[in-house]
Amino acid sequence: MAGKLGILALGHGSRHPHNMDVVREVADMIASKYSSVVVRIGFMNMNKPTIQEGLDSFAGTGVTTIIAVPVFLAHGVHTMEDIPQTLGISRDRRKTTVKLDGRDVTLVYSEPLGSDPLIAQLAYKRALEALDHEA
Amino acid sequence: MAGKLGILALGHGSRHPHNMDVVREVADMIASKYSSVVVRIGFMNMNKPTIQEGLDSFAGTGVTTIIAVPVFLAHGVHTMEDIPQTLGISRDRRKTTVKLDGRDVTLVYSEPLGSDPLIAQLAYKRALEALDHEA
Repeated sequence: MAGKLGILALGHGSRHPHNMDVVREVADMIASKYSSVVVRIGFMNMNKPTIQEGLDSFAGTGVTTIIAVPVFLAHGVHTMEDIPQTLGISRDRRKTTVKLDGRDVTLVYSEPLGSDPLIAQLAYKRALEALDHEA
Repeated sequence: MAGKLGILALGHGSRHPHNMDVVREVADMIASKYSSVVVRIGFMNMNKPTIQEGLDSFAGTGVTTIIAVPVFLAHGVHTMEDIPQTLGISRDRRKTTVKLDGRDVTLVYSEPLGSDPLIAQLAYKRALEALDHEA
């Protein structure tokens, strides 16, 4: 891919701080590990920045493509309907163009985390940590 | 740890099949990778087996400890209130004893997935997959 890549990590949002903390920390981890990527966050509900504010926060960064990644475990109404609608992305076509700094920027919508050996590995790690904690 | 370990992978449940599929697939991955562990699943809402049915399904397996792992991205009302209540675990003590096959079995409650480099790695992978898909 030519150009500069942005990742918009999307969270559900919550009255509790935990969802926001996880999305923020995961975004920070991506930014530290892949330093050529511009990482921003946005929340569907209850927390700030909103998804639109998250998109707007790429202004001035020079990104040519933004990938919106739902930091959700699985698909559901939010990832299949609410978020695509907010992003202006249709269900059959997972890509659109947005204006940023007067330029056209490609916006691509990714799959949520989903089932993956990395999730299995992490769930097993949390199990062992709980066991150690109780030992 | 002495004895045989069980992991109860707990899902939110959904009208859509995706949450159930992810929890089921992740449980299968844990079972394949760590074959000495007995893995079962249970859902809080809308899907079967329920959490209680999941616990009951360890009958006859000989497990001496069960770790209930909420396969949730972050803590929230469900992981902090609803699930502990169903498990009979208090908020300050993350452990209890349940009867299984007439024996006492230790039930430990773990943290949800939370923020972790594995989640960051997976979110970044989903971003690149979306980009490849659109290329």
